[in-house]
Amino acid sequence: MGNLYLALIHYPVLNRHGDVIASAITTIDLHDLGRVARTYGVPACYIVTPLEDQLDLATRLIAHWTEGIGGQLHPTRREALELLVLVRSLEEAMSDIKGREGEFPEIWATSAKRKNGEKLLAYEEARIRLKNRSYPVLMLLGTAWGLAPELFDRAHRILEPIRANSLYNHLSVRCAAAIMIDRLLGDNDGS
Amino acid sequence: MGNLYLALIHYPVLNRHGDVIASAITTIDLHDLGRVARTYGVPACYIVTPLEDQLDLATRLIAHWTEGIGGQLHPTRREALELLVLVRSLEEAMSDIKGREGEFPEIWATSAKRKNGEKLLAYEEARIRLKNRSYPVLMLLGTAWGLAPELFDRAHRILEPIRANSLYNHLSVRCAAAIMIDRLLGDNDGS
Repeated sequence: MGNLYLALIHYPVLNRHGDVIASAITTIDLHDLGRVARTYGVPACYIVTPLEDQLDLATRLIAHWTEGIGGQLHPTRREALELLVLVRSLEEAMSDIKGREGEFPEIWATSAKRKNGEKLLAYEEARIRLKNRSYPVLMLLGTAWGLAPELFDRAHRILEPIRANSLYNHLSVRCAAAIMIDRLLGDNDGS
Repeated sequence: MGNLYLALIHYPVLNRHGDVIASAITTIDLHDLGRVARTYGVPACYIVTPLEDQLDLATRLIAHWTEGIGGQLHPTRREALELLVLVRSLEEAMSDIKGREGEFPEIWATSAKRKNGEKLLAYEEARIRLKNRSYPVLMLLGTAWGLAPELFDRAHRILEPIRANSLYNHLSVRCAAAIMIDRLLGDNDGS
């Protein structure tokens, strides 16, 4: 089975007006995504931001839980936050995966809105691809108002939205990521 | 289809030592669960706490997003937080459902640990029950270290853990709830 990696993108993403921005890190996202990754056997979750102060913040937070008193008191939290890897760009995440796996990952973008076209990837097909292929996959999660258009251009595939036909589709990135990983890697029978 | 309701339980729950406590409200849980409920058509999510200061806090938070400036700036957040119903006890939640549906709900407890016995309910069976039955169901979500034993005694059924056979199973209640609702109500094909 090809390993599935996660990347939580803080740049380039959109703000509510559709401008490309760098968003701030939400610390609860780091905790929740680390715990999802650890629970489902995802080898690494990349936290992508080019902002030095944000990298500093995330470095301190992760160190508290992996090397500091937080990890001593909460070993399960340490195991989760150890899977977070801070990088300045998508390229850095891809290089890290190449170092681990010997090849660059296929990139899957995600969106709450349906993007038509040949890149669209349904969950059932995605599950089968992950089971049958040997290459790694990197799934991009957008913060703020979602991934910037350039990331959809760069992605090899775009996963179908979770609730494309719902009248309302505004999950937090934490909850959306949990659902997507469960659909892709979960057994749905408690195992 | 029988309506599925959610209850986020802050009492009675366990602390890390296994004592029964009342936990504090985490505001991000309220946002995330409201958004999950709205996205999947869950009619109400009960926030259960007997603590007056916690009820005050939650009342102010919800009012900010449903009546105040928050809701004006973020109408989608208003729609989500309007589904939250503050109650002092499980009994109050059940009475509210009786008022809406004409009958009391069946209670489904949830846990990260497998509880053996005849109450155990697999997701596939749970999905079918929700599709085929007309009575309402109330799913209990535990905060802190999980629901107190008395709630498992009271529950009619206990849903299977999400990742019972994983070596690690420490999702946030936000992410666990999102996964469970998607398994129970999602179509898994983007619809």
